[in-house]
Amino acid sequence: MVKAAAVILAAGEGKRMKSKEPKVLHEVLFKPMIDWVTDAVKVAGIDEICVVAGYAHRKLETHLKASCSIAIQTERLGTGHAVLQAKDFLLKTEPEDVVILCGDAPFIDGEIIDAAYEKHIAENNAVTVITANAKNPFGYGRIVRKDGNVTSIVEEKDASVDEKKITEINSGAYWFKTSSLLVALAELKNDNAQGEYYFTDTVEIISEKGYNSGSFMLEDFGMIAGANDRKQLAALNTYARQIKLDCLYECGVTITDESGVTVGPDVTVGSDTTILPGTILKGKTKIGSFCVIGPNSLIDNCEIANYVVFNASQAYSAKIADYVTVGPFSHLRPNTDLHEKVHVGNFVEIKNSVIGEGTKVSHLTYVGDSDVGKKVNFGCGCVTTNYDGVKKHRTKVGDNAFIGCNTNLVAPVEVGESAYTAAGSTITKNVPPHALAVARSRQENIEGWVTRKQSKND
Amino acid sequence: MVKAAAVILAAGEGKRMKSKEPKVLHEVLFKPMIDWVTDAVKVAGIDEICVVAGYAHRKLETHLKASCSIAIQTERLGTGHAVLQAKDFLLKTEPEDVVILCGDAPFIDGEIIDAAYEKHIAENNAVTVITANAKNPFGYGRIVRKDGNVTSIVEEKDASVDEKKITEINSGAYWFKTSSLLVALAELKNDNAQGEYYFTDTVEIISEKGYNSGSFMLEDFGMIAGANDRKQLAALNTYARQIKLDCLYECGVTITDESGVTVGPDVTVGSDTTILPGTILKGKTKIGSFCVIGPNSLIDNCEIANYVVFNASQAYSAKIADYVTVGPFSHLRPNTDLHEKVHVGNFVEIKNSVIGEGTKVSHLTYVGDSDVGKKVNFGCGCVTTNYDGVKKHRTKVGDNAFIGCNTNLVAPVEVGESAYTAAGSTITKNVPPHALAVARSRQENIEGWVTRKQSKND
Amino acid sequence: MVKAAAVILAAGEGKRMKSKEPKVLHEVLFKPMIDWVTDAVKVAGIDEICVVAGYAHRKLETHLKASCSIAIQTERLGTGHAVLQAKDFLLKTEPEDVVILCGDAPFIDGEIIDAAYEKHIAENNAVTVITANAKNPFGYGRIVRKDGNVTSIVEEKDASVDEKKITEINSGAYWFKTSSLLVALAELKNDNAQGEYYFTDTVEIISEKGYNSGSFMLEDFGMIAGANDRKQLAALNTYARQIKLDCLYECGVTITDESGVTVGPDVTVGSDTTILPGTILKGKTKIGSFCVIGPNSLIDNCEIANYVVFNASQAYSAKIADYVTVGPFSHLRPNTDLHEKVHVGNFVEIKNSVIGEGTKVSHLTYVGDSDVGKKVNFGCGCVTTNYDGVKKHRTKVGDNAFIGCNTNLVAPVEVGESAYTAAGSTITKNVPPHALAVARSRQENIEGWVTRKQSKND
Repeated sequence: MVKAAAVILAAGEGKRMKSKEPKVLHEVLFKPMIDWVTDAVKVAGIDEICVVAGYAHRKLETHLKASCSIAIQTERLGTGHAVLQAKDFLLKTEPEDVVILCGDAPFIDGEIIDAAYEKHIAENNAVTVITANAKNPFGYGRIVRKDGNVTSIVEEKDASVDEKKITEINSGAYWFKTSSLLVALAELKNDNAQGEYYFTDTVEIISEKGYNSGSFMLEDFGMIAGANDRKQLAALNTYARQIKLDCLYECGVTITDESGVTVGPDVTVGSDTTILPGTILKGKTKIGSFCVIGPNSLIDNCEIANYVVFNASQAYSAKIADYVTVGPFSHLRPNTDLHEKVHVGNFVEIKNSVIGEGTKVSHLTYVGDSDVGKKVNFGCGCVTTNYDGVKKHRTKVGDNAFIGCNTNLVAPVEVGESAYTAAGSTITKNVPPHALAVARSRQENIEGWVTRKQSKND
Repeated sequence: MVKAAAVILAAGEGKRMKSKEPKVLHEVLFKPMIDWVTDAVKVAGIDEICVVAGYAHRKLETHLKASCSIAIQTERLGTGHAVLQAKDFLLKTEPEDVVILCGDAPFIDGEIIDAAYEKHIAENNAVTVITANAKNPFGYGRIVRKDGNVTSIVEEKDASVDEKKITEINSGAYWFKTSSLLVALAELKNDNAQGEYYFTDTVEIISEKGYNSGSFMLEDFGMIAGANDRKQLAALNTYARQIKLDCLYECGVTITDESGVTVGPDVTVGSDTTILPGTILKGKTKIGSFCVIGPNSLIDNCEIANYVVFNASQAYSAKIADYVTVGPFSHLRPNTDLHEKVHVGNFVEIKNSVIGEGTKVSHLTYVGDSDVGKKVNFGCGCVTTNYDGVKKHRTKVGDNAFIGCNTNLVAPVEVGESAYTAAGSTITKNVPPHALAVARSRQENIEGWVTRKQSKND
Repeated sequence: MVKAAAVILAAGEGKRMKSKEPKVLHEVLFKPMIDWVTDAVKVAGIDEICVVAGYAHRKLETHLKASCSIAIQTERLGTGHAVLQAKDFLLKTEPEDVVILCGDAPFIDGEIIDAAYEKHIAENNAVTVITANAKNPFGYGRIVRKDGNVTSIVEEKDASVDEKKITEINSGAYWFKTSSLLVALAELKNDNAQGEYYFTDTVEIISEKGYNSGSFMLEDFGMIAGANDRKQLAALNTYARQIKLDCLYECGVTITDESGVTVGPDVTVGSDTTILPGTILKGKTKIGSFCVIGPNSLIDNCEIANYVVFNASQAYSAKIADYVTVGPFSHLRPNTDLHEKVHVGNFVEIKNSVIGEGTKVSHLTYVGDSDVGKKVNFGCGCVTTNYDGVKKHRTKVGDNAFIGCNTNLVAPVEVGESAYTAAGSTITKNVPPHALAVARSRQENIEGWVTRKQSKND
C-alpha cells in the first residue's frame, strides 16, 4: 500500500475535558488515543502519516517524536482548515490516496482502514466516507445519497426534516483520491455563521464534479466513538475494556470478577490463566498459560511465561520464567530477569538483576544491580548496597550461596559459590566459594540491666 | 439566619440494620449519616442544633461530643414524641423558625435547607413541608392539598384510593414556625392502632387552625433517600459515589475505571489528575492537578499538591508537596510532611516527620519522629529507632547526608550535614557534618567452613 | 437417607472453555464446581457418591482423592453412556434411589436435593425430574406431560412447534428408583444422528412402562445454571457473588462498595462488620462482629474474632483474636496465631508462630517459627533467622521483652522475660530475663571523611 498516506486530525483542545493536554493524548486502556490511531494506520500498512496538531502541540510533538510528520494548525478555522495544513505533506509524499482520520476516535482499526481502502479502489471512488448506522442519529452528520452515490454530508443544524430521519451517519473517517482532495480543499468556503471551513463540504464538491463518491459502512456503531469530556472518556474505557475482556474469555482466560481489571489492547494472555480483581496489565505485556495473576497487581511491559503466580505485586519491564512465584507485596523494577522456579516472597524489591533458577528471595530484601546464581537463598532483610552516594556497582552471588539475614552486600562485591554469610554481617570484601563470611561483634549479655534501668526511671 | 434552629431526629434503631450502632452513625462515603445532616445545617448557616437520640444514644453522644444539643428519647412513642423531646431546646434557644430533619437521610443539603427556608419566610408559612415527586409513591406519606395549601400528610395505610394516586410525597423534612410547632405538638394524640404520636399530624393541626401551610418540592427524588437495611445503605453509597465521581469528571479528573473508587463528599481533586481503580479518598483530603493517584490506595485527610504520583500506598493526615512520588506499597502516617520532589519508594513507613526537598527514602525504611534535611539519601533498610521502650525521641538528619543501608539511627541522635553512615552501622552518637560514622565489625572469611559443615551434616 | 446414592456427571471437556482442566474443576467463588455439587449431596445426607470422570480424569481423581467413588468414561458416547459407567457403583452400593446431578451446575443445593427426594418418595415415582420454568426455554430440553405424569423430555432440535412453546425445562438433575434406572439404561439406544446414548430417553422408557414419573420444580431458574465458556463462568461468579453479598447484608454486614469483593460460599461474617472494596474472603474463613476488613485484602481459611481491623493485607490459615490490628501491607502465613490486642503493623510477615496478648510487631519484621509472649515490643526490621540453610529452628521470646530495631534472633534461641536486645544486634545465645544483650561494634566518627572522598572524586 505504498501509494497511500494518512492524515490524522489532532488539533483539538476538547474544552469540556478541562485539560492542559491535547485531547488526543488522553488515554484509553492506558494508551493515548493518538497511538490507537497511528497503530491502526500502521497495521493497515500505511507508513506515511501526518498528524495535524494544534492545542498544546508541543506536548504532542514530544509524544510522537519523529514517528510521524507533524503539521501545526495555529488558528482554529474549522476541520477543512485543519486538513489543509497537511497540504505540504501530501504534495511532498505524493500518495495516490489518503485516509483522513480523527485522532480522538481510537476504535477504528487497521482492518477497517484496509477494507475501506479496498472498496474505495474497487469502486474507483474519489471519496469513500466511512459511515455507520446510528439508532439515534441526532447530532451526527447525515449521509445524503442519490443513485447510490453519496452526494453530501449534512450537519444536524442544516438538515431538513427528511434528512434528519437518515440514520446513516458520518464516522469522521474517509478515503480520498489525493488529487480530488486537494482540488476540493481549494474550493472550500467559510461563508457560514461560524466562519469556519467545514471539511464535510468536500464530499459535495467532489460529488458535484461527477466523480464517484461512495461509502463504507461499519458494522458496529461503537467503533466511531470519541470523547468530549471525562465522563465520555470513562465510557470509552469501559467499552474498550469489555471488548478486551471478552476477547480474553474466548482465549480461555478466567476472570473471576472484572472489577478493577484493565487489560491493555496490546497485551496477550494464555489459556487457563486466571486474572483476579484489581489487576492492571499494560503496555506490551505477554502472559503465558496456567498463571494466576492478581489480585491487586500492576504489570507493565513484562514477559511472563507459564505457571507463574503473581500475587498483589507490581512489575515493570521484567521477565519472569516458568513456575516463578511473586508476592504478595513485591516490586519488580525494570530489567529484572527471574529464571525458572525463582521464589520472590513479600516486601521484596528487585531491579536490574538476573536471578538464577530456583533462587529464593523470600522477604524484606532488596536486590539491585546483581547477578545471582542458581539455588541461592537470601535470608530476610538482605540488601545489596549498590550505591555509594556517587556510583552504582554490581553484586555477584554464586550458585547455592546462602546469604544470612540482614546481610549487607556492599557492591562491588562477590559472594562465591556455596559460600555463607553470617546473619547481620556487612560484606565489603569478596567471599571465596564455600567460605563463611562473618562481620559482626560477639554478643554480650548484661544481666539485670533492665531492672536497674527501670528502677532509675521510676 | 440567627433566628432559626434545627432538630434532627436520630433516635431510631433501624432493626433491619441488625446493628448495635445508632442508625444515623452508619456511614455513606465513609461519613456518618448524621454528619452529612449536621454539616448541611451548618452550611445553611444554622448554629443551634438539637439531635434527638434514642437507640444506643451513648455512642451518638460520644460521636457528637459537644457540637450539638442532645435530647434523649427514652421511650419510642412515635415521631411526634421524638420531636417533643426537643421542646426544652426550643424554649431555651427561642428560634423563630425550626427545620426538622431526619438524621438518616443524608442527601438533603445546605442549599435546599436554605431555599426551603426562604420560601417558608416569603410565604409566611407556619409549616413548609419539603416534598418530592415519586414515580412510585407506594409507602410514602402523600401530600394532600386544598386551595394550594397543604392540608395534611396521609400515610399509605390511611390513604383513600384517590389519595394513593398522589405522587407528591413527604420527604420527612419541614420548616416550622416554632410557636406553631409547639402548639401542634401539644395537641398531638396517640389514639391510633399503634398508640404512637405521628409527627405528620402536626401539618393537619396547623392547617386546620387556618395558618399557611406550604411546601417546597425537591427536583431530585434521590435527595430524600434513607436506608432501612444494609442493602439500602449500599445503595446510598452507590448513589452518592456516582454523584461525586460525575462531579470530578466535570472538574477535569480522569477516572479510568470506577471500580473500587470512593471519593468522600468533602474531598477535592484538581484537573488533569488521574485516579486509578481501587482508590479511596476520605476525610478532608485535597489533591492538586496533574497527579496520578492509585491504584489500590487509601488517602485520608491529606493535602497533596500537584504532579504527585501516589501508587498503591496509604496516607493518613500527611502533607505532600509538588513532584513527590510515593510507592508502590508505602505508608505515610499522621504528621508526615514531604517537601517538593521527595521520593518515597517501596515498603517505606514515615510518621511524624518532616522530609526535606529532594530527599530519597527508597526502600524498606522506617522514618519516625525525624527532621530530615534536603537531598538526603536513605539507603535500604534504615531505621530510626525512636522508641527506647519508655519514651520516643527525635532524629535529625542534615542536608545532603547519606545514610548507609541497614543503618540504625538510635534517637535522640543527629547526623550532620553531608555526613555519611556506613552500611550496617548502629549510630548512637551524633555524627558531625562531613564525617563518616562506622559502627561495625571487620569482615572475616572462614575458608572451607561450608564444606566442613556439610560433611558434618552428612 | 442411607438408601440413597448420588451419581455426578463430570466427564465433560467443555471445549469452549479452551482448558486442559476438566470442566467441573473450574471454580465459582474460588470453589471448584464439583465441590459445590458434592457438598450439596453431603448436606442432603447422602454419603455414597460416584463421580463419572472423563476428560483430564487424572486431575479430577487427584482433586477428589478418596472422597468419592470414581467411574471413568473412556469414550464419550453421550450422557446415557456416562451414567451407565456408574452401573458397577450402583450394583455394589445398592441404593434404593439415586440422584443424578451435573457436576458443572453448582447451584443445586442440599435442600433442593432433599426436597425433591421427599416428593419422589411421597409420590412413589420411578423417576422425578428436577425442572425449572424458563422465560426463554430455547435450547433446553422441554418437559412433556400427560395426565400429570412426565412422559418424556424433548430436546430443542426434536421438539414440535407445540412442544417448543413449553416453558418447563429439564434442569439435568433427577431422582430415580435405582432398579428403574438400571432397566432403562439397558434399553437406551443410540439410533440417532449423533450416534449417542441420550440419558433423557430414560424418562420416556420408564413412563412407557407405566411407572410414576413426576417432577420437582425449582423456584429460581438461576439454580440450574452452568457454564460452557469462560464468559458464562464469569456470569456464574457474578450470580453467586451477589447472592452471597445479599446474604451478608441481611446478616448486618456493611459493604461500602461491592467492587472486587468476593466472599466464598463457606465464609461467615458477623454483624456490624464492614467489608471494604477489593477484598476476597475464601475457604472456611470465619469473621466475627465489629471488624473492618479491607480494602484490598485476601483472607483464606482464617478464624477472625471481633473488633479486628485488617487493612490491605493477606492471611492464610491464621487465627486472629479480638481487638487485633493488622496492616496495611502485612502477610500472615499458615499457623499464625495472634492473641488479643496484638498489633501487626506494615510490611510484617508472620508464619507458624504464636504471638501473645498485646504484643506489637509494628514494622518491617519477619517472625517465623516463634513463640512470643505477652506485651513484647519488636522494633523495626527484626528478623527471626529460623533457617540455617539446613533445618528450621524455633525462637522463644518471653513476656515484656523488647527486641531492638534490626535485631537478628538466630534460632534456636531464647530471649527471657523483660529482657532487651540492643538495636542492630545479632543474638545467637540465649538472653536471660531482665538482661540486656548487645552484639555490636562501637561507633567511630571519621571527621572530614566525606570532604576528602569528594575531593578525590572531583
